[in-house]
Amino acid sequence: MRLSRYFLPLLKETPATAEIVSHQLMLRAGLVRQVAAGIYAWLPLGLKVLQRITDIVRREQERAGAVEMLMPTIQPAELWRESGRYDAYGPEMLRLTDRRGRELLYGPTNEEMVTAIVRDGIRSYRELPLTLFHVQWKFRDEIRPRFGVMRGREFLMKDAYSFDLDEAGARASYEAQFLAYLRTFAAMGLRALPVRAPTGPIGGELSHEFHILADTGESELFYDAAIDEVDLADPDAPQRLRGLYAMEAEEHARAARCPVPAERLARRRGIEVGHIFFFGTKYSAALGLALPGPDGRTITPLCGSYGIGLSRLVGAIIEASHDSAGIVWPDAVAPFDVGLVNLRPDDPVCTALADEVERRLTAAGRSVLHDDRDLRAGEKFASMDLIGLPWMVTVGPKGVAAGVVELKRRATGERHELSVESLLARIGA
Amino acid sequence: MRLSRYFLPLLKETPATAEIVSHQLMLRAGLVRQVAAGIYAWLPLGLKVLQRITDIVRREQERAGAVEMLMPTIQPAELWRESGRYDAYGPEMLRLTDRRGRELLYGPTNEEMVTAIVRDGIRSYRELPLTLFHVQWKFRDEIRPRFGVMRGREFLMKDAYSFDLDEAGARASYEAQFLAYLRTFAAMGLRALPVRAPTGPIGGELSHEFHILADTGESELFYDAAIDEVDLADPDAPQRLRGLYAMEAEEHARAARCPVPAERLARRRGIEVGHIFFFGTKYSAALGLALPGPDGRTITPLCGSYGIGLSRLVGAIIEASHDSAGIVWPDAVAPFDVGLVNLRPDDPVCTALADEVERRLTAAGRSVLHDDRDLRAGEKFASMDLIGLPWMVTVGPKGVAAGVVELKRRATGERHELSVESLLARIGA
Repeated sequence: MRLSRYFLPLLKETPATAEIVSHQLMLRAGLVRQVAAGIYAWLPLGLKVLQRITDIVRREQERAGAVEMLMPTIQPAELWRESGRYDAYGPEMLRLTDRRGRELLYGPTNEEMVTAIVRDGIRSYRELPLTLFHVQWKFRDEIRPRFGVMRGREFLMKDAYSFDLDEAGARASYEAQFLAYLRTFAAMGLRALPVRAPTGPIGGELSHEFHILADTGESELFYDAAIDEVDLADPDAPQRLRGLYAMEAEEHARAARCPVPAERLARRRGIEVGHIFFFGTKYSAALGLALPGPDGRTITPLCGSYGIGLSRLVGAIIEASHDSAGIVWPDAVAPFDVGLVNLRPDDPVCTALADEVERRLTAAGRSVLHDDRDLRAGEKFASMDLIGLPWMVTVGPKGVAAGVVELKRRATGERHELSVESLLARIGA
Repeated sequence: MRLSRYFLPLLKETPATAEIVSHQLMLRAGLVRQVAAGIYAWLPLGLKVLQRITDIVRREQERAGAVEMLMPTIQPAELWRESGRYDAYGPEMLRLTDRRGRELLYGPTNEEMVTAIVRDGIRSYRELPLTLFHVQWKFRDEIRPRFGVMRGREFLMKDAYSFDLDEAGARASYEAQFLAYLRTFAAMGLRALPVRAPTGPIGGELSHEFHILADTGESELFYDAAIDEVDLADPDAPQRLRGLYAMEAEEHARAARCPVPAERLARRRGIEVGHIFFFGTKYSAALGLALPGPDGRTITPLCGSYGIGLSRLVGAIIEASHDSAGIVWPDAVAPFDVGLVNLRPDDPVCTALADEVERRLTAAGRSVLHDDRDLRAGEKFASMDLIGLPWMVTVGPKGVAAGVVELKRRATGERHELSVESLLARIGA
C-alpha cells in the first residue's frame, strides 16, 4: 500500500483531551477519530488492527467448537422484560422508541436474544451441547466516557453463549472457552492473567476475568507468582492456572486469608479484556428454554457467556506495548508487517529499488506500507516509529550504491544493512 | 463441519408472514430469524453467505483503489444539522437521546460523517484523490418493514465515498466504482444491470442503480437488448454499458422518447442492490471541506457516494436463483461448497468413508457440511435441496460396496456415481 494513496492523518501534538497513553497514541497515529463522546470512527490503520484481532478471536472460537452467528444491534424491550432485566438494567442501557412507538434498545449484551433463538430453534436434547458466538457492536451509555476506546460507548465485542444438558457438560464448555481465551491472547503476543471474579449483574456462580498486564492498567491484581511459570503449551495449563490464586485488589482485601505465602505473592496492574461466566439456568429458565431429555423428563439447559472486548483490546495492547516514540505492535496484530521508507522518491534508482522491495515482500506474503511521499527523512522515520510496525526497511541513495537497504526492528531498535536477498530471507514470510 | 454440532434450525412449514419466496426460503433454510419487525438475527448458515458476499465486495473495492475504514452506527445530530439534512430527513431516521440529553441518530448513511473526517484529516491537495469505504450496519425506520431482509430496518451496507480535486477526477472515481460494481456482481455469479437513475434526496447530477434480474423483482426495467451482448471482460464494457439505454418503468414512461427501436427494447423485472451517485460539492461545501490547491486558490473537493446493500443481496440472490425444492446458491456465495450425506451413520463402513470424503475435500480447500445425523434419507436429501449447496455427495451402503459415492449438482440435478478419487478430481478445488 502506497502511503500517498492511503488515509493516515497523523497528529503532531498530543490532544489535550486524551488522558492515557493509548488514547493519545491512537489519535496521534491516525487509528481513530472521535465523532461524539465515547463514539469513534476507525481510520484505515486502526481498522486493520481491529480486523486482525477479530480474525484471531474468530479462529480460536472455531477451534473451540463455537459456531458463529450474528445478532442485530437493536433489540426489542419485550425480550428484556422476559428476563426481568429491562427495568433492572441501569441508565447505561440506551433505550429508544421507533416511529410506531415500540420500545427498543441498543444491545449492551445478548443473553436474552440468543436464549430466545435457541429456544425457538432446537427440538431435541441431541442438538446440545451448543456454543454460539458473534462479533457485533454494542452500546453502553457510560455517564463519563473516557480513555478513548478503553471506555467508549459504542464498542466491538465477541460474545459467546454455551448451552448444555447438565452441569458436567456446562463446566466442559466453560473450560473450552477458558482455554480458547488463553490461546487467543497468546496468539496476539500478549500475556493475559485469568483472575477469579465476582459474577455481578450477569448472575451465576463461576466467573473469570482475563487481564493484560500493563503498568498503566486500571486494576490492581494480586496473584501467585507460580502463574508466571505455567507453560501454555502444557495440556494441563488451564487446570493449573484455575487452581492458582489471582484476585483483583478489592476481592483480595475481602478474602479471609490469602492462601499464597507472602514471598510468592505478585502484585501487578492489569486491563480487563475478557470476562467469562457460568450462570446455569438463569436465562434459560426465565425465557422458557426447556427440552425433553432422553428419559422424557424436561431439561432446562445450563448456560454460560463469554466476552472479549475487541475494540478495547486495541487500546490495551498499546498500553502494554509502547515507548516514548510511539506504538510497538506485536507482530500478530500489527496493521502492516513492514514499513518501507523511500528516502528519495525523486530519484528513479531509489524508487525502482523501493518498488522492487515492496513487490517482493508482498509476493512473499508480507503486508507493506510504503512511504513514497516527498517529505524529510526525519519526519518519515518519526511517523514510522509512531505507528509502530514491526519492521522498517529504508531505501536511500547511499545504500542503493552499495546494493543494500537498512532493516530496523521496531521493538529493539536493532538495525542491519542487508542486500534485498538477505532481507527476503530474513523477513520474507 | 458436522451438522450434529452446527445450528441449523430448518422449518417444515412456510411461515404465513413471509410474502416473497426469498423471505420464505431464508426462514425455512435457517438463514435468519426475525427478532423484531424488520430486524433479523443471522443464523450460522446465513452469516456465511453474508460474509462471502462481503469478502467479494471488499476485494473489488480494494482492487478499485478504495481504502477501508469503519464509522460507528451512532452519529451526533449536530453533524446532520451542518448539512441541513437533520430536519429534512424523514421519520425513517431513528433519532435518539442519550442519558445526558444529547441528540443522536442511528446512521442511515454517512456522507456527513466521512466528509467531516476527511475535512479534519487532510491538509494538502496532494492527499487527493481518495475513496474511502466501510461495511457497517445501518438503520432506516421503515413504516412497513416487509420482504424479510429485502426491506428490513437494520441492514448491512458497503458504502464508499470519493473525494476529488476536479470534475475529471471525480468522474474517473465514479467510473472506477461503476466498473467495481460490474465486477463485484459478476464475481458473485449474478447478472446486474446498470440503470440510469434520478438522484433523489442524496442530491447531485449523475447516478446509476444496479439491478439483479429476477422475475420476482420489485422494479420493472426497460433496456436496450444490446446490453445482453456486452462482454464484461472487454475493457470498454463499462463505457458501452453506460451508453446503452436502461431505465426503471417510471423514468421510462417519463422520457420524451425512447432512443431504442421497439424490437431491441427488453423488459424485465429487477431488484436494486447497488446505487452510485456523483453529487459534486453538496456535502463538502456544507461541511467546509476545502483545501489550498497547487496555485494557492481554495479547492472544494467534488464527491460521490456508492452503496451496495449486502444483507439485501442475500435475499436478492435467492429471488434470482431458486427452484421449487429450495435455494440454488451460485458457487461463489454458497455457505458451504459441498453437502455430504451419510445415509447410514450407524454403519462403521459408511461412516469411515464419509469421514474420509470430508477430510479429503476439506484438505483440498472445499468447505463441507457433513450431515451425520440419524435421520431418514428422504429428510436429509430434502434438507440439502432446501439449503441449496452447489454439490451434494451421498455415501450409502450400496455405493460403499461398489467403491463409489454419488455426486449431485444442485443447479441441474445431474447425478454421477464416482470413486472418491474421481470425486476429488472433479470438485476438489
